[in-house]
Amino acid sequence: MPHPNDPSLRSFIPVDPTSDFPIQNLPYGVFSSKDGLAPRVGVAIGDFVLDLWELEQDSRLGVGPLGIFAGPSLNPFMALGPKVWSQTRARISELLRHDHPELRDNDELRARALVPIRDAKLHLPIAVSGYTDFYSSKEHATNVGVMFRGKDNALQPNWLYMPIGYNGRASTVVVSGTKVRRPRGQLKPPNAEVPSFGPCKRLDFELEMGVVIGQPSAMGEMLDESRAEKMIFGFVLLNDWSARDIQQWEYVPLGPFQAKAFATSISPWIVTSEALEPFRVHGPEQDPVPLPYLQQTHPNNYDLTLDVSLRAAPVNEGQRICRTNFKYMYWSSVQQLVHHASSGCAMNVGDLLGSGTISGPEKSQRGSLLEISWNGTEPLDLPGGLKRTFLEDGDSLVMRGWCQGDGFRVGFGELEGTILPAE
Amino acid sequence: MPHPNDPSLRSFIPVDPTSDFPIQNLPYGVFSSKDGLAPRVGVAIGDFVLDLWELEQDSRLGVGPLGIFAGPSLNPFMALGPKVWSQTRARISELLRHDHPELRDNDELRARALVPIRDAKLHLPIAVSGYTDFYSSKEHATNVGVMFRGKDNALQPNWLYMPIGYNGRASTVVVSGTKVRRPRGQLKPPNAEVPSFGPCKRLDFELEMGVVIGQPSAMGEMLDESRAEKMIFGFVLLNDWSARDIQQWEYVPLGPFQAKAFATSISPWIVTSEALEPFRVHGPEQDPVPLPYLQQTHPNNYDLTLDVSLRAAPVNEGQRICRTNFKYMYWSSVQQLVHHASSGCAMNVGDLLGSGTISGPEKSQRGSLLEISWNGTEPLDLPGGLKRTFLEDGDSLVMRGWCQGDGFRVGFGELEGTILPAE
Repeated sequence: MPHPNDPSLRSFIPVDPTSDFPIQNLPYGVFSSKDGLAPRVGVAIGDFVLDLWELEQDSRLGVGPLGIFAGPSLNPFMALGPKVWSQTRARISELLRHDHPELRDNDELRARALVPIRDAKLHLPIAVSGYTDFYSSKEHATNVGVMFRGKDNALQPNWLYMPIGYNGRASTVVVSGTKVRRPRGQLKPPNAEVPSFGPCKRLDFELEMGVVIGQPSAMGEMLDESRAEKMIFGFVLLNDWSARDIQQWEYVPLGPFQAKAFATSISPWIVTSEALEPFRVHGPEQDPVPLPYLQQTHPNNYDLTLDVSLRAAPVNEGQRICRTNFKYMYWSSVQQLVHHASSGCAMNVGDLLGSGTISGPEKSQRGSLLEISWNGTEPLDLPGGLKRTFLEDGDSLVMRGWCQGDGFRVGFGELEGTILPAE
Repeated sequence: MPHPNDPSLRSFIPVDPTSDFPIQNLPYGVFSSKDGLAPRVGVAIGDFVLDLWELEQDSRLGVGPLGIFAGPSLNPFMALGPKVWSQTRARISELLRHDHPELRDNDELRARALVPIRDAKLHLPIAVSGYTDFYSSKEHATNVGVMFRGKDNALQPNWLYMPIGYNGRASTVVVSGTKVRRPRGQLKPPNAEVPSFGPCKRLDFELEMGVVIGQPSAMGEMLDESRAEKMIFGFVLLNDWSARDIQQWEYVPLGPFQAKAFATSISPWIVTSEALEPFRVHGPEQDPVPLPYLQQTHPNNYDLTLDVSLRAAPVNEGQRICRTNFKYMYWSSVQQLVHHASSGCAMNVGDLLGSGTISGPEKSQRGSLLEISWNGTEPLDLPGGLKRTFLEDGDSLVMRGWCQGDGFRVGFGELEGTILPAE
């Protein structure tokens, strides 16, 4: 049987070369349908969702206990471990191949198991156990540091020694398409004597990738590179919405809290580590050499193009405001996970790890408005003569990401969020 | 029917006046037994656990769907809301009263439903949805501030305007009795050029109370005082184990991460808000007056005595090292909860909010070794000629807390944790 990553594979379902969902991808998500299907697990292929619960009931998959795909999250499937992930993906690939008749020639099953994406409602694909956010792009950390502390003290002394991160709020992780209400909070502009409470005036996005943890580790246990790799089920696009003014006033000394707690959006599709395997690359050289527990021998970065466009209200036209690449990250997801567990912190199935804002070396590669508008001093020009420093009510932001194969793309679909006015 | 808080109530089960569990308390927990009972919900009364699942199967409680007490957490019961909490407590109180024959005179049911506490294994009482830790004792924040920034800049400028807090790690919240392994992490003593990785050398406890959230709020929604009060199911003792050396190196700029991620211990018994009602007191005067959303009209503090003792290895004798009171907290639990949701952050059933270290104005009221030993400069004298600045392997720490009624105590039992050496 050919490997599911084989570039020569084709599906009997027609897939455009610019589609994010060729047979080499097969990302997992949770969907329901207009005609009353309850949320269940599916896989994207071209313009369709393949309903895994239908296939399971038809005994086509042979995965774990019956009902593993019947529920509203991937967690039960992820808990089965990397061997099952791999076998299942191989089987789904086989079922979708143009030269495999089993599903292709079964009209009745095809009608039940293939739902047009446009008819599917996509849900949050995992029950988020814990959400952690890192800060691991050197370019992003440097930009922010230069803005607030000047060029000479841009990077904090600890930054080059460990993936700096903090615990975020899992209860407000939402799926693409969920509208985001402008938060209120305590604001204290530099010239104000005392803080006041009101709508955030410096609302921002952060372009990130999210790692989905599919296997647990025990309290008190440390991880190494190879164990950590096997715990990563896949990746999502992640928008770490940020209220810069709330953050500035609240974050000393215990870090961001309400400034990041109101919403974090992720893409509905989880692209598996296995599908991303062909696109692994080495990250930037790390100097100083990391401490032994953080050293890595595998190429743990990914050549993954990322793209942000902003549709500023009231104009309908979007404009690209950032084009960067996940490969620039200084600390890899594997290093982040190893560090996360280094104190003996237990990891759970369904944990979500944000990479931190992904900026690149060029100006066009900045992954937040804070950097793009240089803390509000360089407004961005948009269609219709509009300008933006931070997000305004009605603005809509779209993130996209993909790895370019030979004649196909392994992509994430779209991560969209629109800003509602404060209540 | 008398109110379950009535000081004149007595149970047919004999309860010593120094017991934490008189009929006026009725705290909830999760227990299993030696003879094979699976974890289920119970209530402490004197030296016994009342098995609510047995009572439920015997149709004695009439609470929600059957099986609400059959599982290993209080979350399904908490989700039913404050009216049901109150009705259930009243009914349990009735069943345990000395002048109510229903359970008292039913030998067969008593034999099934009353388990000696010494035969019960106590479990984590809730499934922790999210864990948040605050920093709301002015005395504690001032002590820490004086140590690290000097007397003139002790309190950060934001501290008097909001309950400062951060998201902690829910995956390592454990029940009393769980041994705590000394964490490893990156350490960089002031005189070291570069950090190294190894066992924490400045391991500490923090004496806190934990608030258990029993009702949810929606994303985008704000709370007010009275709504927040109704969402609080009850309180636990909480020990926020802290690795001071890891924290010092990692915490800028995003706050504590691995320094607090290895373990947080809570008491097995949740004392309900209702049982604590008679012990409510006003907190310290707040100056400046809080912003309107944080203002409170009710007495939201509690006159609750707290006590920490340390049994330093290898000596068997414990010694009290702190005696303080929850009433000193500058920001109340209600203010913390209101602030937590102020950006639109959704709260979930099973969220746990640590109060922050509870220190008082006196030296004997300091709630952490950091303060007691004044950052290691004033070692503590212990029995057997032992000295301590921070915790050593084999040391065991016990926290207790209670409200003193007229002839009875409404208490939390014991929160114990023993330090294991690093692996």
